Amino acid sequence: MITRNEQQNARRRAAEMIRAAGIRITAREADGIDVVDFGLSRLEKEGVQVLTLVQTERISVKVLVLFPGQTEPEHWHPPVGSDPGKEETVRVASGTMYFYLPGENTFKQGFLVSGKEHCYTVRHELVMRPGDQVTLAPGVKHWFQARDEGVVLYSFSTVARDVMDQFTDKEIVRTTRVVEK
Amino acid sequence: MITRNEQQNARRRAAEMIRAAGIRITAREADGIDVVDFGLSRLEKEGVQVLTLVQTERISVKVLVLFPGQTEPEHWHPPVGSDPGKEETVRVASGTMYFYLPGENTFKQGFLVSGKEHCYTVRHELVMRPGDQVTLAPGVKHWFQARDEGVVLYSFSTVARDVMDQFTDKEIVRTTRVVEK
Repeated sequence: MITRNEQQNARRRAAEMIRAAGIRITAREADGIDVVDFGLSRLEKEGVQVLTLVQTERISVKVLVLFPGQTEPEHWHPPVGSDPGKEETVRVASGTMYFYLPGENTFKQGFLVSGKEHCYTVRHELVMRPGDQVTLAPGVKHWFQARDEGVVLYSFSTVARDVMDQFTDKEIVRTTRVVEK
Repeated sequence: MITRNEQQNARRRAAEMIRAAGIRITAREADGIDVVDFGLSRLEKEGVQVLTLVQTERISVKVLVLFPGQTEPEHWHPPVGSDPGKEETVRVASGTMYFYLPGENTFKQGFLVSGKEHCYTVRHELVMRPGDQVTLAPGVKHWFQARDEGVVLYSFSTVARDVMDQFTDKEIVRTTRVVEK
């Protein structure tokens, strides 16, 4: 749950970071940025801001923003019907992204969200800078984080069905509730 | 056919335009920009520069550059095997794009390539600026053009099989031949 004020402030801040990254977006797009708290009600710690540029039955293009210190919780994209699951390429536009996926534990530069250590199980670390990208096959667990400067990244994928995403943290609800006060 | 010199100059110029548009690319990506003359040997008039960012079996992300006065010839994306054909969203990153597709003839601000008027049959005009985008279903004929300032655009699509593209101009060969001098 977030307040309308939190939503509007996060939207405005995300739009500024997107534009500062050199990405030209329309006023309408800026107004439509999704502010996602994953039902955890502590947006600044675990959350993400999402601008959907393209969403068809076949592909999806999003710009994601993490504020400094914000973490997108560990999740994966399961098969849905005849779809083997979402394949996703993330590419950094500005800032530095600490990205985690399965493999040897090389966890070093990021941090684990306090009290939620058990919800961050994959710890192979990539430190990604503008122009760096990685492609994830369906089903691969991943989470990512920004530190001091925040990060703006692209997500290019096959069709996104966000509500079907699976999270390690069972307290997560993918739909964010916004309250007026 | 283009010379190695033409290829290298066009690559360099395209990389500069991409970076000036605020898009962060690696040195390796810049060196891999495709310079496409469509087999017509007059790159400055009919051609395109293509940086492929993502190419998997399911999706494709490219950055395209048209120099001032350059036109990408009319073409469409046909079905290939079980694929209904490439679905494509183009989005302008910088500059102005004159984009043409089927519909009422509203041709006004672009120009027809001299001597090739019959190869540009769809003339419904969109004048697109940064942040503007359009999604094309498979099979829809289209062509596009830059005038004074050139244009840098994104192409987000389902899997690209460029050699299967169909062109109105029967003289076109999709593979560009590069000669050493």
